[in-house]
Amino acid sequence: MREEGAAPLVPPPGETPIVVLVRPQLADNIGAAARAMANGGLFHLRLVAPRDGWPQPRAWAAASGADRILDAATLHASLDEAIADCQRVLGTCPRPRHVITPVLTARGAAAELRDATARGLRCALLFGPERAGLEAEDLARADALVRYPLNPAFSSLNLAQAVMVMAYEWWTSADATPPRVLQTHKTRVATREELENFMGHLLAELDACGFLRNEAKRPGMVRNLRHWFTRGEVTEQELRTLHGVVAELSRGRMRRGRPEKEG
Amino acid sequence: MREEGAAPLVPPPGETPIVVLVRPQLADNIGAAARAMANGGLFHLRLVAPRDGWPQPRAWAAASGADRILDAATLHASLDEAIADCQRVLGTCPRPRHVITPVLTARGAAAELRDATARGLRCALLFGPERAGLEAEDLARADALVRYPLNPAFSSLNLAQAVMVMAYEWWTSADATPPRVLQTHKTRVATREELENFMGHLLAELDACGFLRNEAKRPGMVRNLRHWFTRGEVTEQELRTLHGVVAELSRGRMRRGRPEKEG
Repeated sequence: MREEGAAPLVPPPGETPIVVLVRPQLADNIGAAARAMANGGLFHLRLVAPRDGWPQPRAWAAASGADRILDAATLHASLDEAIADCQRVLGTCPRPRHVITPVLTARGAAAELRDATARGLRCALLFGPERAGLEAEDLARADALVRYPLNPAFSSLNLAQAVMVMAYEWWTSADATPPRVLQTHKTRVATREELENFMGHLLAELDACGFLRNEAKRPGMVRNLRHWFTRGEVTEQELRTLHGVVAELSRGRMRRGRPEKEG
Repeated sequence: MREEGAAPLVPPPGETPIVVLVRPQLADNIGAAARAMANGGLFHLRLVAPRDGWPQPRAWAAASGADRILDAATLHASLDEAIADCQRVLGTCPRPRHVITPVLTARGAAAELRDATARGLRCALLFGPERAGLEAEDLARADALVRYPLNPAFSSLNLAQAVMVMAYEWWTSADATPPRVLQTHKTRVATREELENFMGHLLAELDACGFLRNEAKRPGMVRNLRHWFTRGEVTEQELRTLHGVVAELSRGRMRRGRPEKEG
């Protein structure tokens, strides 16, 4: 689904948060995390003591084209070394316990990262190893912890999924797409005049075929039809199609003579 | 990171949206999608013509314990069959083109699914095959399409990641966690009286050791210290530790005699 030749543009360090994978175990997950980073517009990856060493080809295989992120990833012996130049550090932690610390939602964390980067602070987002997450010593190095609101009965999150949620929230925090739009392609929503023009055509044919012959019921039936045609933001192109449908059905009726209902 | 023995509670059909994977290719992704569903509180899975048949053991291996979802998943020959009993159908589509249709963000879709399920409508969320996503014929069966706001230069989303984002938004749409809280474990944020008590202790010792002996600079230095100690919502427990730190440093100084700065 990726466009050929499209590659992530890499912003200067400091403009987007740095993702720090602390003691990651599986190269597949490192690659999938890089792909998720690219999805959400995060580009700077630092690896602290990956269990199986670095680089590992399986990471590139799992990255589905987010190679630049892996190519530029840096390797660090310790978390302290990885975050030495950072000014704001958030640590993801599904169950912060026995600690006195600010705890953010993923959305809250994204908002704070936007604020901090806008102020020129270099930010890091820490993700722990697959099996057990960040350790207490890691968490003590974070300004705040991030706990995603998720099903407490099943909160085991794959590492790349955890990165995906934060990358998605990072992107979304600067996104202004309205929650619902009607995509009208090359047409537009019909005007009331166009709609009434079609209603006139439809009702004339329905009168001609006798569908509306019950005078007592006619106003209610017409209102019902009008409600249906106004409910879904019909477009100008769709009205043209509907004009054609009505005309064609009417011609079919006339070819067959008077409709059976009236026969 | 999952708690032993914890399993997702399965709500009755209709109370949570049904996830429909249309012609999924890889069993690993079906399993990872089930795990992501459990993370976000989605439980009903329907599979339309999986490429490699069904069931497939690899799906269970990738589900990391979300077995109930896979056990209960139903197999369907066509999309029409899979959604026959549904009343609201949303189709995920990274690039809806040449179609006249409502397009929702993931967040907008989650809000509409909450509304629709609250009204008792049975809802379905469609995800297409890994390679190319839903086809035009599939999209024409959806009431609205869902396009996630993501990096347009790298919008290739793994199938399970796509499910994760919607599952996360579904859960979050009913979550009221504040974006930032200070988790204070067994203590609480200190009162101003407790803080001033500590400041008095600290300043007395700093006066005793001569650190504040410059009378002209003293008020500014005290203000700076007060700013620092008030900035981070210090807790009552932390103040007790800091009292101990000050007392212990002072005793060390007294054991060594007068500090060197004054010697």
